[in-house]
Amino acid sequence: MADRHDIARLYVNDGLSSEQVAQQAELYGPLAEDVRDLVQLSIQTLADEDAVAQARNLLAQARKILAENRETGPYGVHFSDSGEFRPWGNAVMGLRNPIAPPVQVVEESDGSVWAEFTLHAGYEGPAGHTHGGVLASILDQVLGDAARHGGSPGMTGTLTVRYRRPARLGDLRADARIDRVEGSKAFVVGTISDAEGVCCEAEGIFITPKWMEAVRDVHVPGTG
Amino acid sequence: MADRHDIARLYVNDGLSSEQVAQQAELYGPLAEDVRDLVQLSIQTLADEDAVAQARNLLAQARKILAENRETGPYGVHFSDSGEFRPWGNAVMGLRNPIAPPVQVVEESDGSVWAEFTLHAGYEGPAGHTHGGVLASILDQVLGDAARHGGSPGMTGTLTVRYRRPARLGDLRADARIDRVEGSKAFVVGTISDAEGVCCEAEGIFITPKWMEAVRDVHVPGTG
Repeated sequence: MADRHDIARLYVNDGLSSEQVAQQAELYGPLAEDVRDLVQLSIQTLADEDAVAQARNLLAQARKILAENRETGPYGVHFSDSGEFRPWGNAVMGLRNPIAPPVQVVEESDGSVWAEFTLHAGYEGPAGHTHGGVLASILDQVLGDAARHGGSPGMTGTLTVRYRRPARLGDLRADARIDRVEGSKAFVVGTISDAEGVCCEAEGIFITPKWMEAVRDVHVPGTG
Repeated sequence: MADRHDIARLYVNDGLSSEQVAQQAELYGPLAEDVRDLVQLSIQTLADEDAVAQARNLLAQARKILAENRETGPYGVHFSDSGEFRPWGNAVMGLRNPIAPPVQVVEESDGSVWAEFTLHAGYEGPAGHTHGGVLASILDQVLGDAARHGGSPGMTGTLTVRYRRPARLGDLRADARIDRVEGSKAFVVGTISDAEGVCCEAEGIFITPKWMEAVRDVHVPGTG
């Protein structure tokens, strides 16, 4: 979609005040929640032909309304002079992205980060369990956030995930912290756990790639 | 959600004929497509308060219809005596899962597999680019499929992804094949590429965990 030379354009200073940002979150956040519910219903409904036709007709009307005034490309990262960054389209933590659980990362004063989140039926891999790829996806995000919060922001160079045992769907927790920094590389470690303990462990190497240099002066909280 | 002892129950022989399976795909597949479109609109719409309220009202009506007769847990893996397996809730390739692009894997006679797919704005990480975690997620699925197709089905033990350069959103391709097998472990390699070449490389080690033994006699095509 986006040409590489257009990337800087996707870092949008839209000049919104903190109040306007809060209003946007209140307006579009619940819409994303509605669609998250529809994701589950798409998987779980036993509706017959007539009921599905009725529901699809309503969805078509809703889509028409939402499409009347819309962007067509990726969301990018919006920000304001007030310093608030909004990677709201992010696939793991985006407020406006129904694919995102979303995972909301908490930053600790010791440099570590963690997140508690709930995975519904849409994150399934092996029957009844979280897809291993979904766990990798969340680890990539949370380890990247740990790199940034620990003072070494960057893009993922290598991500290694070791699966100890299947993680059930439902309530899970991720933890991550920088293990060490070597030059422009941050080595970050982390885990995902359920109530019974650690399900998988990860190590990520985060570096700053050349294409990011154009926007290097912009501090972007963990955009994956 | 699902208790570990209930996992076998999630492998459901629902006794559908091939014709009934096709009917279900025709009924619920387009519903998932509608929700995929809503995922994008949730991120991209510029609708004002009144329009969002109208759209949400329609979505609420649709959700009510779809929720009248529904399952409440994960989809699991449905199958029939006819031998058709339906991991339709799968987060990467599920026909009924709007989170899945979906990725549809093609099996080659030489044992390799590949898939071509399109990632919309809902798979964004760095501005304009595919989330590194989403790439890992797809690689986990496709490498697992290669392990199974190559004769060594199993769960992911370790997944390592090396990111060469950011992958733009849009049309991408995954390729995977078994590199070697050592006992119960299959070492699988793969890549994701765009029009300009390889964006990231992965190695996965796939093994059969103990919890899977209860359903080991059931041949389940790549369920992540």
